[in-house]
Amino acid sequence: MRAAVYYGNHKVEIEDVSEPEAGPGQVKIRVSRNGICGTDLHEFYDGPIFIPPSDPHPLTHKAMPVVLGHEFSGIVTAVGAGVDDVAEGDAVTIEPIYRCGECRPCRSGQYNLCKSIGFHGLMADGGMAEYTVVPRNQVHKLPDSIPVEMGALVEPMSVAYHAAVLGEVGDQSRALVYGAGPIGIGIWFALRGMGLTEIDVVEPSETRRRSIEALGARTLDPTSVDVPALIADRTDGDGVDAAFDAAGVAPAVESALECVGERRPLISVAIYDKPLSTPLINLVLRERRIQGTICYTADDYRAVIDLMAKGHYNTTGWVDTIALGDVVDGGFEELRAGRKMKLLVDPTA
Amino acid sequence: MRAAVYYGNHKVEIEDVSEPEAGPGQVKIRVSRNGICGTDLHEFYDGPIFIPPSDPHPLTHKAMPVVLGHEFSGIVTAVGAGVDDVAEGDAVTIEPIYRCGECRPCRSGQYNLCKSIGFHGLMADGGMAEYTVVPRNQVHKLPDSIPVEMGALVEPMSVAYHAAVLGEVGDQSRALVYGAGPIGIGIWFALRGMGLTEIDVVEPSETRRRSIEALGARTLDPTSVDVPALIADRTDGDGVDAAFDAAGVAPAVESALECVGERRPLISVAIYDKPLSTPLINLVLRERRIQGTICYTADDYRAVIDLMAKGHYNTTGWVDTIALGDVVDGGFEELRAGRKMKLLVDPTA
Ligand SMILES: [Zn+2]
Ligand SMILES: [Zn+2]
Ligand SMILES: [Zn+2]
Ligand SMILES: [Zn+2]
Repeated sequence: MRAAVYYGNHKVEIEDVSEPEAGPGQVKIRVSRNGICGTDLHEFYDGPIFIPPSDPHPLTHKAMPVVLGHEFSGIVTAVGAGVDDVAEGDAVTIEPIYRCGECRPCRSGQYNLCKSIGFHGLMADGGMAEYTVVPRNQVHKLPDSIPVEMGALVEPMSVAYHAAVLGEVGDQSRALVYGAGPIGIGIWFALRGMGLTEIDVVEPSETRRRSIEALGARTLDPTSVDVPALIADRTDGDGVDAAFDAAGVAPAVESALECVGERRPLISVAIYDKPLSTPLINLVLRERRIQGTICYTADDYRAVIDLMAKGHYNTTGWVDTIALGDVVDGGFEELRAGRKMKLLVDPTA
Repeated sequence: MRAAVYYGNHKVEIEDVSEPEAGPGQVKIRVSRNGICGTDLHEFYDGPIFIPPSDPHPLTHKAMPVVLGHEFSGIVTAVGAGVDDVAEGDAVTIEPIYRCGECRPCRSGQYNLCKSIGFHGLMADGGMAEYTVVPRNQVHKLPDSIPVEMGALVEPMSVAYHAAVLGEVGDQSRALVYGAGPIGIGIWFALRGMGLTEIDVVEPSETRRRSIEALGARTLDPTSVDVPALIADRTDGDGVDAAFDAAGVAPAVESALECVGERRPLISVAIYDKPLSTPLINLVLRERRIQGTICYTADDYRAVIDLMAKGHYNTTGWVDTIALGDVVDGGFEELRAGRKMKLLVDPTA
């Protein structure tokens, strides 16, 4: 079968590899779509970062080379011994986390923080291939109302949903989302799904503003509006109930730390590549907090699948599909240049 | 009566002022001791900051000049009309916050975050005087087991107790306190009062380490020990349950953000005078948080008074007393030079 194989920095090959088979407790999937994520770009341009170059990962026993792809959906084509609640023909989406089950975060259910965490598509052969095999506990069934292709978006939308949950908001809350990339869009969808109506998305790029506005979002251009002044004015100085940094830049953090109300959080969901100059005094004076968030657990998957089944997610204007052979030139390069926002790979094309 | 009056930057005069009288709802106090706080130093060397130079404060209707002093205790000498639960002769400590009672934080009981907050001794004539007059709601009675002089420490110890509460720790928790100044010492006392036994105080100054060690604390010298490595080793990678930054410097924040466990907080209780370079990625990867904290409410006062009544606080080696006339030379200057750690002013001397 054809697959996108990662051999190291700037080295991804589309090649023929042997088709994997489902062992005991495993499920074999014919991949429908696999999203390209910022992590994949990091591995390609700056990596290997998460992908083990030589020492096998303790849970997957796998190192480079690996088939990329951790955001995918597909159709079950076979199940291994002992798997009786998933069957051939089921449409599924994958929650690609391997966890030890024994460390403190695993024992408390927060396996997104597992000390030995691994990801299918980084520490095991992933979804940028015609077929892939995953453990049963990574499989979530998709209801009929969700097109299987769209199921590939459950992973990034769950990252965003998990962030939204940490915002501790209710339907009467006001929120600010910094950055209208795929995660910012996902946070906006998650907050809307939680019933919020007072959400502003702060985004300097006009293209990105237009794109999220087309989905129904209200936006602010921080290059032409004094966001903290506007929010103070609108809320009579109370500030917003939660802000989300999906931009990862100092101006977003600074602005957010002025806009958040007392005892309210700024949720950090960006992969900051260096320390940012952070006005911690703004935390102290109003007892604000900055809360980090990463990945998701099955609860987030279930919530996103429920919303998706209700038609809550709209891919118009921000999601495109490319062929497997195009992963580098039509994928990584286009995303890095900012010409595309989110790309799904069709491994059959 | 004699008082230390603030006239502006570098201008504090010890002079005779008229003795205040208790109006309706007020309590007149003969001051026993009044602590000098970092805020007073800021006002003297860099201010006016909190002290209103000309426009009267909305709640106290007072501007410069003001009698300094917001950390004090004393004996009630008179009560105004309508005050029937405090009487002449009562030993009391003062919670020096004026609040509006109407803003959102006030309505939710978090009046330490009142939008119009004022402080006795900054926005009203304070405790660096023989007498002062406060509203009834600022008065907390001291039980007989607490020496009235020690009551002046309830204010800074409540700042520290409030920070400790936000750490969300239990008696089996591990904690790290960065900085062994008065607030760091207060956090150590608060955590001990909550039953914690696994506390390390991180402090580069040998003098300060010796001083808190004499109280019974365990310390770490960050200039000779790799604190994150030591903590990782001791906790099998779990990290501590809470860290407290009472140092306000980048190395403390950086170290703390490596030592705190997943979903656990770094509590910021310092007055950061500039933004610090902060590795926010360390929040994201383990879902840690930085939580700001400021001041206290009556709950913290009650908790500190209870612990103090049990003999939990020990002033040996870190608290000294000076005469009112010595406030600038023997007070501010000694504290700024780091030759003294905490000074109480005796207004009768
Ligand atoms: Zn991803
Ligand atoms: Zn684990
Ligand atoms: Zn103070
Ligand atoms: Zn208020």
